[in-house]
Amino acid sequence: MRLSPADMEKFFNPESIALVGVSRSGTRLGGLSFLSKFIESGYEGRLYPINAKAEDILGIKAWPDLASLPEIPDLVIIAVGAPKVPDLIAECAEKGARHVHLLTAGFDETGTSEGKDLADNLVAACEKHGVLVIGPNCMGPYRPAARLTAWGAIPGLAGPLGIISQSGGMTQRLTEYTASLGLGVEKAVSVGNGSVTDTLDFLEAFGKDPAIRVIGIYLEGVSDGGRLLTLARDTGLDKPIVLLKGGETDAGARTAASHTGAMAGSSAVWEAVFRQANMISVHTMNEWVDALMACAFVGAPSSEGVFVLSGGGGTSVTAGDSFIREGLSVPQLSATAMQRLKELVPAAGSIAGNPLDLWKVFTDLDCLGSLVDMAEQEQDVGIILTERLIARNAFHMPETPDLTRQTIERLKERRGRKPVVFAVDSEGGDPWLASEGAAIRSAFGRAGYAVFPSISRAARALARLCRYYKKRAQMLTPKV
Amino acid sequence: MRLSPADMEKFFNPESIALVGVSRSGTRLGGLSFLSKFIESGYEGRLYPINAKAEDILGIKAWPDLASLPEIPDLVIIAVGAPKVPDLIAECAEKGARHVHLLTAGFDETGTSEGKDLADNLVAACEKHGVLVIGPNCMGPYRPAARLTAWGAIPGLAGPLGIISQSGGMTQRLTEYTASLGLGVEKAVSVGNGSVTDTLDFLEAFGKDPAIRVIGIYLEGVSDGGRLLTLARDTGLDKPIVLLKGGETDAGARTAASHTGAMAGSSAVWEAVFRQANMISVHTMNEWVDALMACAFVGAPSSEGVFVLSGGGGTSVTAGDSFIREGLSVPQLSATAMQRLKELVPAAGSIAGNPLDLWKVFTDLDCLGSLVDMAEQEQDVGIILTERLIARNAFHMPETPDLTRQTIERLKERRGRKPVVFAVDSEGGDPWLASEGAAIRSAFGRAGYAVFPSISRAARALARLCRYYKKRAQMLTPKV
Repeated sequence: MRLSPADMEKFFNPESIALVGVSRSGTRLGGLSFLSKFIESGYEGRLYPINAKAEDILGIKAWPDLASLPEIPDLVIIAVGAPKVPDLIAECAEKGARHVHLLTAGFDETGTSEGKDLADNLVAACEKHGVLVIGPNCMGPYRPAARLTAWGAIPGLAGPLGIISQSGGMTQRLTEYTASLGLGVEKAVSVGNGSVTDTLDFLEAFGKDPAIRVIGIYLEGVSDGGRLLTLARDTGLDKPIVLLKGGETDAGARTAASHTGAMAGSSAVWEAVFRQANMISVHTMNEWVDALMACAFVGAPSSEGVFVLSGGGGTSVTAGDSFIREGLSVPQLSATAMQRLKELVPAAGSIAGNPLDLWKVFTDLDCLGSLVDMAEQEQDVGIILTERLIARNAFHMPETPDLTRQTIERLKERRGRKPVVFAVDSEGGDPWLASEGAAIRSAFGRAGYAVFPSISRAARALARLCRYYKKRAQMLTPKV
Repeated sequence: MRLSPADMEKFFNPESIALVGVSRSGTRLGGLSFLSKFIESGYEGRLYPINAKAEDILGIKAWPDLASLPEIPDLVIIAVGAPKVPDLIAECAEKGARHVHLLTAGFDETGTSEGKDLADNLVAACEKHGVLVIGPNCMGPYRPAARLTAWGAIPGLAGPLGIISQSGGMTQRLTEYTASLGLGVEKAVSVGNGSVTDTLDFLEAFGKDPAIRVIGIYLEGVSDGGRLLTLARDTGLDKPIVLLKGGETDAGARTAASHTGAMAGSSAVWEAVFRQANMISVHTMNEWVDALMACAFVGAPSSEGVFVLSGGGGTSVTAGDSFIREGLSVPQLSATAMQRLKELVPAAGSIAGNPLDLWKVFTDLDCLGSLVDMAEQEQDVGIILTERLIARNAFHMPETPDLTRQTIERLKERRGRKPVVFAVDSEGGDPWLASEGAAIRSAFGRAGYAVFPSISRAARALARLCRYYKKRAQMLTPKV
């Protein structure tokens, strides 16, 4: 294993961090901004800004060089010009520091011969001195539990995700996005060009990390497709891997080449890799988060059938369409369930079924609870999706109180055996509605319920989840 | 033509409305709630609630029956039990009122023989007495310009859309959703079971309505597929039709049958109809709104090439992927443009291209303006997509001011020849971010710019727009 548990500890749980390339002022992303974010996030280890011209920076004592530090820093963050980097790697080694996050850009991603030479020198220096580098051209490690959060959501939220990314910006956004929905991150790493340690090294380490239950990857390219396939297939048997492949298309690949210097490869090859390794393939940030949430909060459903509780005829009709279109089923209810349904909602009469169009579920928690009970008894139902309507004027219900908290309490009390997931729509340009929707989604997510902003997005994420578990079961079945 | 301009005037611009079935109190959707919403929306015509037991309702004089009214009401809204409806149709005719919105449910959509008989009696009464009915089982007409907004967005927003829907709830949501984005409605109609006047009658009338530029339809089924094809093909040459087909799948169709009694038909047949009539087919509420917005605000692009202005390497890579995946192009820039790009952003250096990864466009309006100028000169570029980032902590830019207003002013001043569209992401569970995003989207929409909550949704909507115009051009080319 390229990255040992001890290496992972240095990178993700450092007791001390030296920052090389910290100016005394400025607004650009760099050492100073990292230092200020460590302070803001309440990082509790020892921070050593390196600057020969400063006494202190942001109130923290500055040091002239690595050699003068009173201890060997667990992690060194380097944010100086690319040409100075190889010498700094040597300085780290002299001090005894072997774990470096290299923020600096300007290496092989530039596509120039100078950049390529600098990358070669960097790799050579690391090999010579036995130094492990994350980067260059990246945001590095992120771990909310250690308050190692110089970027992304601050404060971060600890949780079951392990994120590996060739894009710092995508990872910043992901951590913010998932944290807002109550879905936390154990470890995230922006690997950049991956010249020394790369996506595959972290995939291997995350696969063996007991605190990580679901892995998310943003990938533009890999040096060793065969190793990816083997690693992902093995890791995927233990925990789902949700992979967003950047540079799927010609235009994307062209941009990827200038972004991380990666050769993106042909989409047909990638599709084969995804399939053989049983990775969950997604195309956008939203799909990435939706699938991660389904994996983290839903688990393995007992069936691919969905019982849909919604309100409004057209909404129910299109909800049914959404699930079927994604390959799930919306099973007709058994005679027993239909009988129970008629007792529960006599007024629904002959139109009752699955999807169930019943506005009452938005306002009557007893009714909602009984319907969930009923659905749980259905053998063909593996997942219960409940739409939650935000009470408002356009629906002739401006004064109905929001029952999100009570809904969560009720569901927690009954300790159901089948997953209940939610869809809360607040799309558009209405700031009040958008804010309400976000707060309700956040509340469901923080309570551990998968939540989506539309039924169609729920359908797509749940279909991906079901396909993953189906294939996994096939892979685990011994061949006869 | 089934619905003459005079009929449309009575339905959508009534000077007087009688409401039959208005209780003195209650919270259910019905005559009383319609009356209260007319008052709230500031409807300026004369309102006549009919109730033999009341002197006045909500401060408006009540009348014992239609016969006693001091004039012939332009529109009669009926919200009484289904069995009473045929006699009321006769009463309308006796009074001379020929335009009825029938809110009442309980007809053929119930699937019972009683419901079927009631529907037959309704149709027979309308034919005998020469009365036109919208409904039954529907929300009826909606027209913001006349403050005829008993449902949906209140206040409504007038604009270029004509909406025809077999679902009241979907139409309520649509009017609210589009109004929040500055995209207004000229006329919307919830047709319900369409027993007397149906989707096709309104499609024909909307096609000839000069105030309607784009038509949106939510359809579960039609009685006459041949007429739909002919009407849609002819109308579609003049204005785009965006159709959301409910009941595409078995589960959807089963639900549709109990919703409006419609036979949803096979999806293969529908696909053929969409194609031959050049209708824009969408699957969800979000896709419906996105496509309507693209049609209303973008118009016919000069090319299917998109220039993408974004920030962040991964975002740019996946943005390129999104457009290509949807069938558009992200053309490489000409040598002239590349030269201009290097002058404008020397720092971008060799990584500059299309998509352009340049955070500066979020904060430097001169730079943004020059880049739009540059892109407009490119023959292969037909649409310019600009991502707008919301300044926030996770991106190390908490204090950057929002430049939405200034961006709009700048773009308005330059009177560009090619459409500029926006993507503003604020997904997740953060109420502040969600609210900011909604406000920014609303501002762009109100200024007449198409705006989407993600690049992938922009890509899908713009691809649909381009396909529509491409096919339209083929249809208009004389066969040799």
